[in-house]
Amino acid sequence: MRIARFSIDGNVGFGVVEGDRSTATSDDVDSLVLDIIRGHPFGDFELSGQKVPLSKVRLLPPVLPSKVVAIGRNYAAHAAELGNEVPEVPVAFFKPSTSVIGPGDPVAYPSFSSLVHHEAELAVVIGRMCREVPAERVADVVLGYTCANDLTARDVQKTESQWARAKGFDSSCPLGPWIETDLDPADLAITCTVNGELRQAGRTAEMVRSVADLIVHITEAMTLLPGDVVLTGTPAGTGPVHVGDEVAVSIEGIGTLTNKVIKRG
Amino acid sequence: MRIARFSIDGNVGFGVVEGDRSTATSDDVDSLVLDIIRGHPFGDFELSGQKVPLSKVRLLPPVLPSKVVAIGRNYAAHAAELGNEVPEVPVAFFKPSTSVIGPGDPVAYPSFSSLVHHEAELAVVIGRMCREVPAERVADVVLGYTCANDLTARDVQKTESQWARAKGFDSSCPLGPWIETDLDPADLAITCTVNGELRQAGRTAEMVRSVADLIVHITEAMTLLPGDVVLTGTPAGTGPVHVGDEVAVSIEGIGTLTNKVIKRG
Repeated sequence: MRIARFSIDGNVGFGVVEGDRSTATSDDVDSLVLDIIRGHPFGDFELSGQKVPLSKVRLLPPVLPSKVVAIGRNYAAHAAELGNEVPEVPVAFFKPSTSVIGPGDPVAYPSFSSLVHHEAELAVVIGRMCREVPAERVADVVLGYTCANDLTARDVQKTESQWARAKGFDSSCPLGPWIETDLDPADLAITCTVNGELRQAGRTAEMVRSVADLIVHITEAMTLLPGDVVLTGTPAGTGPVHVGDEVAVSIEGIGTLTNKVIKRG
Repeated sequence: MRIARFSIDGNVGFGVVEGDRSTATSDDVDSLVLDIIRGHPFGDFELSGQKVPLSKVRLLPPVLPSKVVAIGRNYAAHAAELGNEVPEVPVAFFKPSTSVIGPGDPVAYPSFSSLVHHEAELAVVIGRMCREVPAERVADVVLGYTCANDLTARDVQKTESQWARAKGFDSSCPLGPWIETDLDPADLAITCTVNGELRQAGRTAEMVRSVADLIVHITEAMTLLPGDVVLTGTPAGTGPVHVGDEVAVSIEGIGTLTNKVIKRG
């Protein structure tokens, strides 16, 4: 099932997306309908039966994570294109809640960088509070998957040893368009286009560490909360975005996350 | 004024600490009284006049930050003791909300490390939402100051290039005992003791970058929210803690933050 978070008339809620899942994108607003969830989707939930067309709502980031834990250099070809080795242990870093935006929200080009790169990534949405998760229990703590763009100030990343500013700036973490709960993440096509031109094309099968391995690694150190998000690394082909560009991340079985880059106001 | 966050009979609130500020610590529960704040201390607030002795409440972390932005290597002597240069630009990293604990809360020794170090730090509590703060406006966005311990898995920090696990594990960010709002952070004595033995002794005047410089640097990239916390680096003398140790961070004009290290359950 596909779970979206949305606002309508000043109210915020979650809903299950109906319609043709095989082809629908978040632009197909006319053919899609949301069945509104009573409460939230973490744990058992009921549908209200109250339905609203997608064309009437604004899609929000599908979750508001307390933290996003991201993994660097998890595709060998991307590590190589930046002149890096695949690390012996996964490179884990944080993107803060203030970096998260939703589908269609603008990416504000930061004033302290002149080289912002797109990074298309599979995002894992955590469904329940967990720590020290063994590999065989990972499926129990995952609610589903969405698309992410791990926007990175590549120039700043090179001059600052920790990436809080380079990867944590406002609007550097678009998430969406919704959470797909019925998906095997093992081998999905993942692409990034800029103004319709293909820039990144990979498969999640190229990941150095699997989703399960990453969640084991992260929760060895820290508790993940419902709605927290794990980013799983980007395939080769990252490159610059500019003010005015439209960046689209697509993942097989999920859909497309599109954001336009604007001048920071 | 000193603002504490507390729980009593299952309710959570903020209060202003009355009593002798020059000598009081959070252990002096018998002589101190909280005047309960109506609502929260971000923005103008009123006191309820309802008073409760500190001995009747449990002190909580003085804020629940959406994020903690910390700065590494901001005291030259500490950078040198780890064999590092003072960086050309401040080293900014995140500690997540799940790492925050309060005064008296236990630090659970993480299972993935065998070398956890204490790092006594002055913590800045942000009072209002802000971004791109100019130096002359920093005072307007600061609510006050508290003590922090930036606990660090030093062994993991050496093998993982990004510090999310080494500095972001559960209970790695004790904060407290309260927020002091009337304080000049320019030159305060800061110490750390382990089981009463002095381990760190410095002055905030030794910081490479001032509180104002750090907030300018951070908010150039990201929005800070009310209750967010900025850690300002640690003086020389960091060293290991062990299960059973009692670690106390004291800062002149604020008070003492004490936490015991326990085995992770």
